[in-house]
Amino acid sequence: MRVFKKILNAEDKKILAALREEIAALEPAARPLAGHILEAGGKRIRPLLTVLTARSFGCHDPIIYALAGGIEFLHGATLLHDDVVDGAGIRRGSPSAHTVFGASRAILAGDVLLAACMRIMLRSRKFGILESVSLAASKTAAGEVEEINNLRNPGLDYAGYLEIITNKTAWLIRCACEIGAMQAEASPEQIDAAAGFGLELGIAFQLVDDALDIAPEGLTGKPSGGDLREGKITPLLHFYLETMPPGEQTAFLHAFTQAAFKEEDLSAILGRMRACGCAERLRGIAGAHLTKAEAFLASFPPGEEHDALLDLLGYIKDREH
Amino acid sequence: MRVFKKILNAEDKKILAALREEIAALEPAARPLAGHILEAGGKRIRPLLTVLTARSFGCHDPIIYALAGGIEFLHGATLLHDDVVDGAGIRRGSPSAHTVFGASRAILAGDVLLAACMRIMLRSRKFGILESVSLAASKTAAGEVEEINNLRNPGLDYAGYLEIITNKTAWLIRCACEIGAMQAEASPEQIDAAAGFGLELGIAFQLVDDALDIAPEGLTGKPSGGDLREGKITPLLHFYLETMPPGEQTAFLHAFTQAAFKEEDLSAILGRMRACGCAERLRGIAGAHLTKAEAFLASFPPGEEHDALLDLLGYIKDREH
Repeated sequence: MRVFKKILNAEDKKILAALREEIAALEPAARPLAGHILEAGGKRIRPLLTVLTARSFGCHDPIIYALAGGIEFLHGATLLHDDVVDGAGIRRGSPSAHTVFGASRAILAGDVLLAACMRIMLRSRKFGILESVSLAASKTAAGEVEEINNLRNPGLDYAGYLEIITNKTAWLIRCACEIGAMQAEASPEQIDAAAGFGLELGIAFQLVDDALDIAPEGLTGKPSGGDLREGKITPLLHFYLETMPPGEQTAFLHAFTQAAFKEEDLSAILGRMRACGCAERLRGIAGAHLTKAEAFLASFPPGEEHDALLDLLGYIKDREH
Repeated sequence: MRVFKKILNAEDKKILAALREEIAALEPAARPLAGHILEAGGKRIRPLLTVLTARSFGCHDPIIYALAGGIEFLHGATLLHDDVVDGAGIRRGSPSAHTVFGASRAILAGDVLLAACMRIMLRSRKFGILESVSLAASKTAAGEVEEINNLRNPGLDYAGYLEIITNKTAWLIRCACEIGAMQAEASPEQIDAAAGFGLELGIAFQLVDDALDIAPEGLTGKPSGGDLREGKITPLLHFYLETMPPGEQTAFLHAFTQAAFKEEDLSAILGRMRACGCAERLRGIAGAHLTKAEAFLASFPPGEEHDALLDLLGYIKDREH
């Protein structure tokens, strides 16, 4: 078993226990929704990053589990709102919260979780942690607005795409690592290294996620081609376009921007995208970000946590779902 | 002109200038929505309360305008989300943000405002202020979930109703006053008095709002009977039920819980509700809370701010829209 999986299995019990304690302390009206989104399975990578980063820099105070729970609250808030925004009926194989409880309660429970995250972070009595978390919350939501603003806009270039995924995904993962180092009262250089590690890891995580969009449903458990259906622009689209003669490109882009693909068109496109190697090319870019993350990791003290974080990079690179 | 209106006119310019500065500092994707919700008119009572409370306890630092702007950000976030939750197409006479920008952007921009509020509050470097604001954000959202949970539930008694309005409305007004006193580094007793003043004022504000629900549209600019249509339980419903013979009550409650009223039924019901004096009775209860607020105000130092706050109580009591 991977080092990181072994640590995840051991730590996840403590993280889940902390999460349950925090859910029980919420306003009663928000508890069922918080339980639904936070106990639905999922890998809980973000809170694990907080715990491992804090421990890596020498902090073993149990408060790190509460802070890790706070990070997962923030992540849960974004998931509750995302599922309403995307109209997603399924989350991790189960009906999404807004399907079960209604969109209104899902929106409001997300707000409760966001506020509760801040209340948990306040226990650290560290302004740096509060700055990091509120900045991450802002970036995440703003990144999603930018993504919506660019739906079906093939003019979005790689720099624009990178900015969107940095904001909507990587910033929160950066924050999870940064606050661990802050709670451990690591040096400013070490805190920067933790933040840099998280940011690069987060970018790679989303790149691999976007590469997995065209993987067969049997492999990922999610319908294949979701981004293509929703009109989300990822590099896969540009890589695929490069393989086409110009005339074909024009027709494809016309259909894409008009959301005019039929199911059989999509199947054929997905088949061609898989065959042209664009997912592998995107994973290659992810690999470059993981190499940058590894360079930041060199500033972490040696030990079990360092090794688990290093192993996590390999897991992200290879993940198939 | 009322003392408080005069102060509002003078201070609102400074509050609006601070708000605009904070909007300009937001992530670009959120600015149009923030501008839409925050510059749509409205009375900006909450930020004024922060400014007046801070000044009342001797703080004239310009930071109070930023904190006041932060309070309005939090209020704006709740309005953005509320309008999606209620499906409200109109806010203050203009199309609501989700109508103009779409529900997804409205939800996400609300999240950006909530996070930005925290970032503004961090400038105070006062944990008490951050605690107060995050608690208020949580209570507001939780109160709205409770309200949804009790739609068309005539079994909701006055205590349950009071808890809902305290959470969804009064807590944020309490917070606006409390953080003003905190920024002024008032004594713990004075901070408690400011919080108590805000809480009672906030409860009275919502009671009068609920009384105004049956006022003719020509007076308020809002369609009459909105709560009745949406199935929101307010004391007006119980006061009106008391005027009916038991058999009629049963038929009314059946139609109410089934949302079975036709437009002509509603007109007739609203006419009878206006005639039975239930709005006046609810204003009477609001008056009792305003008296409590006045008692808290006695702990404020004498001066222009005290007088304006006292005058505000009279304005809330008498307001017709």
